[in-house]
Amino acid sequence: MTELKFDKWQALYAKRTLLMKSSEIRDLLSVTARPDIISFAGGQPSTKSLKIHKVIQATQRAMHREGEAALQYGPSEGHEGLKECIAELMKEEGIEAETHDILVTGGAQQGLDLIGKVFIDPGDKIVMEAPSYVGALQAFSAYQPEIISVPLDDNGLKVSHLEKILEQRKEKPKFIYTVPNFQNPAGVTMSLQRRQKLIALAKKHQLMVIEDNPYGLLRFEGEKIRALRTMDASVIYLGTFSKIFSPGLRLGWVVAPKPILEKLVFAKQAADLCSSSFTQRVVEEYFNSNQWRKHVENLNKIYGERRDAMLKALEEFFPKEAKWTHPQGGFFIWVTLPKYLNTTELLAESIREEKVAYVPGRAFFADGTGQNSMRLAFGYPDTETIFEGIKRLSKVVKRQMSLYESLTKKLHL
Amino acid sequence: MTELKFDKWQALYAKRTLLMKSSEIRDLLSVTARPDIISFAGGQPSTKSLKIHKVIQATQRAMHREGEAALQYGPSEGHEGLKECIAELMKEEGIEAETHDILVTGGAQQGLDLIGKVFIDPGDKIVMEAPSYVGALQAFSAYQPEIISVPLDDNGLKVSHLEKILEQRKEKPKFIYTVPNFQNPAGVTMSLQRRQKLIALAKKHQLMVIEDNPYGLLRFEGEKIRALRTMDASVIYLGTFSKIFSPGLRLGWVVAPKPILEKLVFAKQAADLCSSSFTQRVVEEYFNSNQWRKHVENLNKIYGERRDAMLKALEEFFPKEAKWTHPQGGFFIWVTLPKYLNTTELLAESIREEKVAYVPGRAFFADGTGQNSMRLAFGYPDTETIFEGIKRLSKVVKRQMSLYESLTKKLHL
Repeated sequence: MTELKFDKWQALYAKRTLLMKSSEIRDLLSVTARPDIISFAGGQPSTKSLKIHKVIQATQRAMHREGEAALQYGPSEGHEGLKECIAELMKEEGIEAETHDILVTGGAQQGLDLIGKVFIDPGDKIVMEAPSYVGALQAFSAYQPEIISVPLDDNGLKVSHLEKILEQRKEKPKFIYTVPNFQNPAGVTMSLQRRQKLIALAKKHQLMVIEDNPYGLLRFEGEKIRALRTMDASVIYLGTFSKIFSPGLRLGWVVAPKPILEKLVFAKQAADLCSSSFTQRVVEEYFNSNQWRKHVENLNKIYGERRDAMLKALEEFFPKEAKWTHPQGGFFIWVTLPKYLNTTELLAESIREEKVAYVPGRAFFADGTGQNSMRLAFGYPDTETIFEGIKRLSKVVKRQMSLYESLTKKLHL
Repeated sequence: MTELKFDKWQALYAKRTLLMKSSEIRDLLSVTARPDIISFAGGQPSTKSLKIHKVIQATQRAMHREGEAALQYGPSEGHEGLKECIAELMKEEGIEAETHDILVTGGAQQGLDLIGKVFIDPGDKIVMEAPSYVGALQAFSAYQPEIISVPLDDNGLKVSHLEKILEQRKEKPKFIYTVPNFQNPAGVTMSLQRRQKLIALAKKHQLMVIEDNPYGLLRFEGEKIRALRTMDASVIYLGTFSKIFSPGLRLGWVVAPKPILEKLVFAKQAADLCSSSFTQRVVEEYFNSNQWRKHVENLNKIYGERRDAMLKALEEFFPKEAKWTHPQGGFFIWVTLPKYLNTTELLAESIREEKVAYVPGRAFFADGTGQNSMRLAFGYPDTETIFEGIKRLSKVVKRQMSLYESLTKKLHL
């Protein structure tokens, strides 16, 4: 058996593929599954609190009720019964959606891929938050857009900044992608005022708004803020069962205006024909048993405690030069260190010396900035591990700061 | 709540999206779920013979053994335990694959989408069989290739035809996509000689070969023919659990050379992060209990009888002017009617008057030919239904033939 030479394959790849490469960060993070590493890197939800037997029971009910259909192909749009659950869930966000407004996807990630496929031609402009969800950066980048980055502050996307960009630019972007609640990676939430302004701006410039809301129900502090989709029915909304139930079932959804949904369904059909009839029915049964509310309440208690533990540890151990966000929900705290620190270099040391992992900020920027920032996920490790991990991480940070200070002193001698 | 105008969205779509449209055929076939319709249209496998309780038991074992992992995100490459099952299955096809050669996908359909994404730039040439699998046409078309169609005969792809094309063309195609066993839709199998010639040709022209083999284990007659992948390790092989177990779990796989697999993994990550950890473990448990061999034997008995029933009914009822293929396995018989008949028009009448559905041949050609052919799927209806359905369908065919004859006679008067 012989193989074609590697360089010959290289010549066969599409242009988009030549842009894909294994990142330094990805390589560094490959160790996070090791049990001796405290990882604040992955955005995994806690699945420990999900009762295994409840999932088995949901499977049994689904199989006894509709076993043959559960093992067969289903409609590309998704299983009607699950879409009814989704319509119910959408009401929790104040969104009225009929089942025919909904497309079931392989997690919200597939929704992002399908949106990229339906909207982006190479060179098209799209607007993203800076920092932004790394999975959205990957999904959209495959379709070769030009990404316009708009910064965030504690009130979320700086809409006035976007306004200036839109007024200056001749070519208009196709859409803006935002995670308005407990943003991944920054942990900040867009204020009501900014949401209203964003919707008005989008209308004025005929710009599609993509609202990605995986963490919306995971609020442990403060008042819920209206979803963008409630302000304008042309907003494309992405939801997921990954954070409120289980990411292992890979189910999410898109709510979109009818003609767009139709295009997304075609794209879905070409991508994988349909989502699993089996998992769709298991999730349907689980939700219809009304266990999900209790589970989400429980999650919010757990995550709230973990956030508190992380904030407390940061306060106690991190140097005063460091700044961090105060998330009212979700999974993430964003830490900004002094400008001279490089969190990618720091990560190598942190894993080697202190066995603590996080994601360097650079991963979340389309333009390669964010070198001195880091994302800390508090959803998965327990409070004691969080405390210990932040303590250890602070040592690396302080060490590097002292090193820098002694170096600059020497240079000034 | 207001919506942007429809035409405004139109302006936002990518070029590839403007090519997507609801087909006449799709609309006609939307009735096939009606219980009064005998459908030879869908390629659904029979899931009746799958024991519901075996699937529940596999779920229980999976959840008791690795419940937390089953509910969590997993590696983009796929769950190691399932990849071990796949490596075992590959041996049945004479293919040696290590787990690191395998990527788990959302059915083989996702494999096709990822291959399109990794290899096709707009305008790139690719070679497909004519007729070809409609899902592959859809998946690849989204990346805007120019499709070079190569006809089939009873021995599969006409490789000498491809040879001529390759010698005449200046720009070389990136890959050739083939379903060598019991082809969908034609039901024909590529001979050993042609397979060897195809591999030699691909090497000579540095053309990637994509071997899609969903039906390989569903042979009810004749000798197994070596997989293309056994002749050259640079062949990209696609497999699926849909036909030997259940399509409702949406699991398939790709075996590819290492550097290509790496690109496919990046594309997979951007597309949906990973396949379901839950269904991967359910299938793993099911396969490790060794029930699958008995199930596949059982399927081959059922499908063989159904094929026989369909061939017998065609022989008995169809006019002598019609020709059809004799599949040695799989799901499909391809019927060619006299040139003057249009099977899309015939379908409308067949559904209306005789309540029988099939897929018109045109759907399987990139170039709009195949007007007088049809695909008949025998996998799902039972033998009696098949007999009745073919009898009814023959009436429509004969009616249209007489109509044509009487019209031509009149014109010649």
